[in-house]
Amino acid sequence: MPKKVPEGVIERLPTYLNCLIQLEQEGVVRVSSKRIGALTGVNPAEIRRDLVYFGTFGIKGVGYEVKYLIGKIKKILGSDEPHQIALVGAGNLGSAIANYAALGKHGFQITAIFDVDPAKTGGKLGQAIVYHVDDMAEVLRRERINMAILAVPPRAAQRVADQLVSANVNVILNYTSVMIRVPPSVRLHHSDPVNDLLYTLYYLSGRHPVTS
Amino acid sequence: MPKKVPEGVIERLPTYLNCLIQLEQEGVVRVSSKRIGALTGVNPAEIRRDLVYFGTFGIKGVGYEVKYLIGKIKKILGSDEPHQIALVGAGNLGSAIANYAALGKHGFQITAIFDVDPAKTGGKLGQAIVYHVDDMAEVLRRERINMAILAVPPRAAQRVADQLVSANVNVILNYTSVMIRVPPSVRLHHSDPVNDLLYTLYYLSGRHPVTS
Repeated sequence: MPKKVPEGVIERLPTYLNCLIQLEQEGVVRVSSKRIGALTGVNPAEIRRDLVYFGTFGIKGVGYEVKYLIGKIKKILGSDEPHQIALVGAGNLGSAIANYAALGKHGFQITAIFDVDPAKTGGKLGQAIVYHVDDMAEVLRRERINMAILAVPPRAAQRVADQLVSANVNVILNYTSVMIRVPPSVRLHHSDPVNDLLYTLYYLSGRHPVTS
Repeated sequence: MPKKVPEGVIERLPTYLNCLIQLEQEGVVRVSSKRIGALTGVNPAEIRRDLVYFGTFGIKGVGYEVKYLIGKIKKILGSDEPHQIALVGAGNLGSAIANYAALGKHGFQITAIFDVDPAKTGGKLGQAIVYHVDDMAEVLRRERINMAILAVPPRAAQRVADQLVSANVNVILNYTSVMIRVPPSVRLHHSDPVNDLLYTLYYLSGRHPVTS
């Protein structure tokens, strides 16, 4: 096991995993870094370098065993075990996330959903019950959930994040458009569709040379 | 202007920009890299190093002028000008994106939306008209749109992507859970909520030492 793996490597592992799962579904048994590269847009040499951080998984000239590599990456990421998550916000974005089939494929299970709208609470969204936000602390404790996806309106984001932290949630995925503050002990990931657009725009604007 | 800026730097610029815009809205005039770091989770030294790629924007011991730095980063990214985008898919995810206020703040305007559902076509979603997918090529050409967000069901993703490429779209943001193939001339960005979860999981699983 490595001492220190750069964050960029970890960021790319889920991309490789998704690619490999898709290839497995298509019946592919063995794959080269070149083919993974063509599908993911990552340079094949970089893929090989990334994977070597965790061991020797491929054979030169032969490639990687798809099934074996899927198992290895799942183990590295920790997605070989099931994980319970809470989803806060049952609006359009929350509904899209709750019905996202790819979550289950990676062992993520949305166990509880929270909203303030009385028209939604008490019902079900995807596989999970929608509770009122007022019952959040109690439900999270009872269900032993420590990961949450934040999909509430911007003005509610910080308040709900504070409530999640109070309820001992230590991983928050922020899908709102605002940045929230959490204590250093909480792992926070901010996912923003605008960020992706802006990033892409840089390469589109033609004002800059293309990076490698 | 720099010769070659690492992709990681470009990836972080939108995060800095969002942070600065939020600070500006809160009335902050000047900010230190330390404070940006506390809000974004990026190491202050890394923030300073990233920004130096594009010029000297801050004064040692004083910090950065928020308004000035916002203008600079917008210019670097190319978001100082308006951009027209198409959105394909008017389901839950599409609706969430169409109503995402942060898009407009960065000059992105969803000009046309496409779906196959007759109950949706002809109407409006957010500010834009929902057209039938069959009219996509014609509308994209007429409106001179070359960026598109893909928010269709997984099984339709590749087919719709092919149609977008045929209609001269050269930037695709893929929000579906499947990987699609596009020609090298098309800039493709795959945004997957599961990737963020898996990435976060790595640090949570406790199987690995924390990276810097």
